Amino acid sequence: MTILTDTLSTNNASYASSFTKGELALPPAKKYLVLTCMDARIDPAAALGIELGDAHVIRNAGASAVDGLRSVIISEQLLGTNEILLIKHTGCGMLTFTNEDAHAIVQKNLGANSSGIDFLPFPELEQAVKDDVAFLKKSEFVPDSVNISGWVYQVETGKIVNIVPA
Amino acid sequence: MTILTDTLSTNNASYASSFTKGELALPPAKKYLVLTCMDARIDPAAALGIELGDAHVIRNAGASAVDGLRSVIISEQLLGTNEILLIKHTGCGMLTFTNEDAHAIVQKNLGANSSGIDFLPFPELEQAVKDDVAFLKKSEFVPDSVNISGWVYQVETGKIVNIVPA
Repeated sequence: MTILTDTLSTNNASYASSFTKGELALPPAKKYLVLTCMDARIDPAAALGIELGDAHVIRNAGASAVDGLRSVIISEQLLGTNEILLIKHTGCGMLTFTNEDAHAIVQKNLGANSSGIDFLPFPELEQAVKDDVAFLKKSEFVPDSVNISGWVYQVETGKIVNIVPA
Repeated sequence: MTILTDTLSTNNASYASSFTKGELALPPAKKYLVLTCMDARIDPAAALGIELGDAHVIRNAGASAVDGLRSVIISEQLLGTNEILLIKHTGCGMLTFTNEDAHAIVQKNLGANSSGIDFLPFPELEQAVKDDVAFLKKSEFVPDSVNISGWVYQVETGKIVNIVPA
């Protein structure tokens, strides 16, 4: 154990000691999914009031729909979700570098060639929300019956702002 | 707006009205990341006591390290995290189907050929934790200085159980 895993294990013991939701079903009760960024400043359950058992939450660097497609398909095709909220955010790290920057950093730090990896950075936030919603709407793996909306979460205020209406 | 987005927007307005963490830095303060499943029955922040701003949280179907690698590299190479908790869970949907099953369901529901997509299901939970930790430890993109541990979250009890020590 490390100091960190010790701390998190202690936190978890406290959580489990008052846990009462052990009977929830596998499919999300409210049939929706949230696709957002891994950013440390976002707590989707708290910020949106997602109750345990209600929704799938997919998180990756930049809230990328391309990167999240495998999970999205499993969610809507195998587990019955029919509404997607795609939420990117202000101050995202993905706005601060290019693929070339990332490849150079990995080469310098690790001596490894990551040129085969698309890190999926984006230069403009609201356009990236629109592009990712469009990607999902056009995907042959996401039926038209799935409602998709696009949002920006403001890390400065805790507010979500709608960019692409549901 | 849909009934759902109306509800989540109302929830968010309440969250934002008492939000006081607008000055947090972009890099995770505690320099760790949690990679877990999108499953609706998991609330990583609550279950582990993750404070806002402390950690990256990556979530995808099955807590796949293969699927999450892009985000992991960005987290540790560009944003300074040096400890990874990989957490799969009991009752995971990924234990219940094969790639062939998923491809057949997509073909039947959507008339689309998803045979090019590896949905990354796994037949045995603890082995999958070990395999994913080993994948990260062997990756040329994750330096040995990054501490990696593997866990199972029990959806029935709210408890985490250590499988691969930190």
